[in-house]
Amino acid sequence: MKVALLGYGTVGSGVVEVIRSNSESIEKRAGKPIEIKYVLDLRDFPNDPINELIVHDFNVILEDEEVEIVAEAMGGINPAYNFAKACLEKGKSYVTSNKELVALHGAELLEIARIHNVNFLFEASVGGGIPIIRPLNQSITADEINEITGILNGTTNYILTKMKDEGRTFEDVLKEAQELGYAEKNPAADVEGYDACRKIAILSSLAFGEHVNFEDIPTEGITKITKEDMVYAEKMNCVIKLLGTCQRQDDNVFARVSPMLISKSHPLAMVNDVFNAIFVKGNMVDDLMFYGKGAGKLPTASAVVADIVDAAKHKGTNIMTIWNREKIDLKAKEDVRVAYFVRLENADAGLGERVNEIFGEVKQVEALNGEYAFVTRVMKEKHFSEKLEALSDVKVLSKIRVQE
Amino acid sequence: MKVALLGYGTVGSGVVEVIRSNSESIEKRAGKPIEIKYVLDLRDFPNDPINELIVHDFNVILEDEEVEIVAEAMGGINPAYNFAKACLEKGKSYVTSNKELVALHGAELLEIARIHNVNFLFEASVGGGIPIIRPLNQSITADEINEITGILNGTTNYILTKMKDEGRTFEDVLKEAQELGYAEKNPAADVEGYDACRKIAILSSLAFGEHVNFEDIPTEGITKITKEDMVYAEKMNCVIKLLGTCQRQDDNVFARVSPMLISKSHPLAMVNDVFNAIFVKGNMVDDLMFYGKGAGKLPTASAVVADIVDAAKHKGTNIMTIWNREKIDLKAKEDVRVAYFVRLENADAGLGERVNEIFGEVKQVEALNGEYAFVTRVMKEKHFSEKLEALSDVKVLSKIRVQE
Repeated sequence: MKVALLGYGTVGSGVVEVIRSNSESIEKRAGKPIEIKYVLDLRDFPNDPINELIVHDFNVILEDEEVEIVAEAMGGINPAYNFAKACLEKGKSYVTSNKELVALHGAELLEIARIHNVNFLFEASVGGGIPIIRPLNQSITADEINEITGILNGTTNYILTKMKDEGRTFEDVLKEAQELGYAEKNPAADVEGYDACRKIAILSSLAFGEHVNFEDIPTEGITKITKEDMVYAEKMNCVIKLLGTCQRQDDNVFARVSPMLISKSHPLAMVNDVFNAIFVKGNMVDDLMFYGKGAGKLPTASAVVADIVDAAKHKGTNIMTIWNREKIDLKAKEDVRVAYFVRLENADAGLGERVNEIFGEVKQVEALNGEYAFVTRVMKEKHFSEKLEALSDVKVLSKIRVQE
Repeated sequence: MKVALLGYGTVGSGVVEVIRSNSESIEKRAGKPIEIKYVLDLRDFPNDPINELIVHDFNVILEDEEVEIVAEAMGGINPAYNFAKACLEKGKSYVTSNKELVALHGAELLEIARIHNVNFLFEASVGGGIPIIRPLNQSITADEINEITGILNGTTNYILTKMKDEGRTFEDVLKEAQELGYAEKNPAADVEGYDACRKIAILSSLAFGEHVNFEDIPTEGITKITKEDMVYAEKMNCVIKLLGTCQRQDDNVFARVSPMLISKSHPLAMVNDVFNAIFVKGNMVDDLMFYGKGAGKLPTASAVVADIVDAAKHKGTNIMTIWNREKIDLKAKEDVRVAYFVRLENADAGLGERVNEIFGEVKQVEALNGEYAFVTRVMKEKHFSEKLEALSDVKVLSKIRVQE
């Protein structure tokens, strides 16, 4: 089975390494040998044996009928989207680690794959090496999924873990992470939650079977989390994690990316450093969690190659994926019900009473530095905002959602 | 797609409940409606609508060509083994939650399924509702697996969790678990590790592709674990878990079931109460963990029904499972390398020095009640036994293996 690889960066070179290191066991699993015939890259690699496979023209790959599977590890929408479409329409299966592409065009590309009886696979686009896409498609098939909540970004989880363990500020840890190469020079995609947003959009679409537009998902990052928030979290026997979540609530579905306080007894609470995990709640199977390395050359490449194996095994059969192009009407952000942890500055004598009057019964939290801190009961986002508005004369130091 | 169900006990009635509750989404996943045509049970159920589907004669099912999938939830080898063989040979797929059957006859039944181009599926036989069999077969296909270690028995994990959290003895918690119905009146299958042994035999066979005989797996239960051991574990920042494990070591493979001390930073350490989890280490993807409810009516039934869906989707195609009948030659127990935690009674003045002389450098642990406690370096089991023999004049209060 001849494969072409698009992109010879970190993940792409990992794909070559995985296929060459484990060729024997991979052949056993795929039922036939897997051979890389071309590697598309703009660059040449004169000192790498891969150089003899390098091509600079995508059409060489597209027009070669021997190539039955194309694996993409370039990222970005252009030219990946056109490449994916062209390959599928030519009857080649397409596997990708490209979360932007899958979040934006997944439903359409799945449909094209179906029409041409080939496969569009994207295990590596969420959770790196963690098997989650295939389990959602093929294992959790007897359940209706009520919730998926994930730690989907390793960089922010690393930062939050360091802030907690070492009592350091966000800025300080981010700077160190940048120096160590764990965070990008422009860290917005990670720390503002944009990366997690694409990933939860993909998981939501698979969970509910219809397209969730990532632009419709309210997204907050971790830049406002302080070391004082971490101290409060510890007092409450909680940790703070950046969570992407989608849940059924009442008769519809909401999705969100935001930092949240979760109890230390929740399985996601122990997921530290650069590890990722995806928690799934089915109406029959109840709680499940999938844990592993959410990024990195070889873990991500392992997932890409597992997709290549699956495409090879399913030559001539489209593996059904329930994700159609109909768009889900997400519940409006302001109608989602949630509890908040709130820190107010300068608690004067009457503040506690005022808070209780405005919010109804709250759970007071032992406060630092003369602050007043509490957890609200569960209420709609819009009601929370209104009530907080009534306290506009008091400075709000933090408001962080609490995972039930 | 017509299905027959063998056994209408806890899991069997769960299978009916799952299929009826989620019929719409299951039909979407399977691509066709799934209908239970017969339920085989010795009993009648006059007050249950299922009664009209009850048959007492297996041959009714076997001879009905409309029945394409048989789901078994009876347990035990007889008559399950004969039923499985007969169904597969008649061209019916067979799905089962029966770990004894799979551990003993899995390789043979997979071969029969292959010959007849049907499927033998057993997701529910390990880890209840946790997707682990299918991920091993279909997701972790780019890796060579170096280790699988699991908390595979909910009853013992519940007992160990209670002993730790409440400082109680094994006997005390077992008695309570029996009263609550979490443990059987004859608890040997759970507390002696026999249940975990069958499950790790199945996982080992899938990880390494050849048959691991469960009778060859050294198996120790948790009956000797004391509340003092739990205190020591806490001091060492560890927990004690009953772990089934299989690992590559040197050029071969070992498997074992035993209580082990694991660091609280290991992802398995936070798996509490009746939850199960399976930790997998691949040579490319590195650490993965799969977590969920390892038992219970609906979680287990969810896995059985997921297998039914898979069998329906793959009608006419054998889903390859790498588990052939060749037997793995497991590494001899005495040659496996491991570190031990040891507690000795009545530490007299010279005992520490003697221990260091016999064992080489050990890591001393702050001891309770005038004991002497230490962790050995990693050594072969036979060398550990020999060295301990040299201390035969001292009473050994505990020896527990330490997971690296």
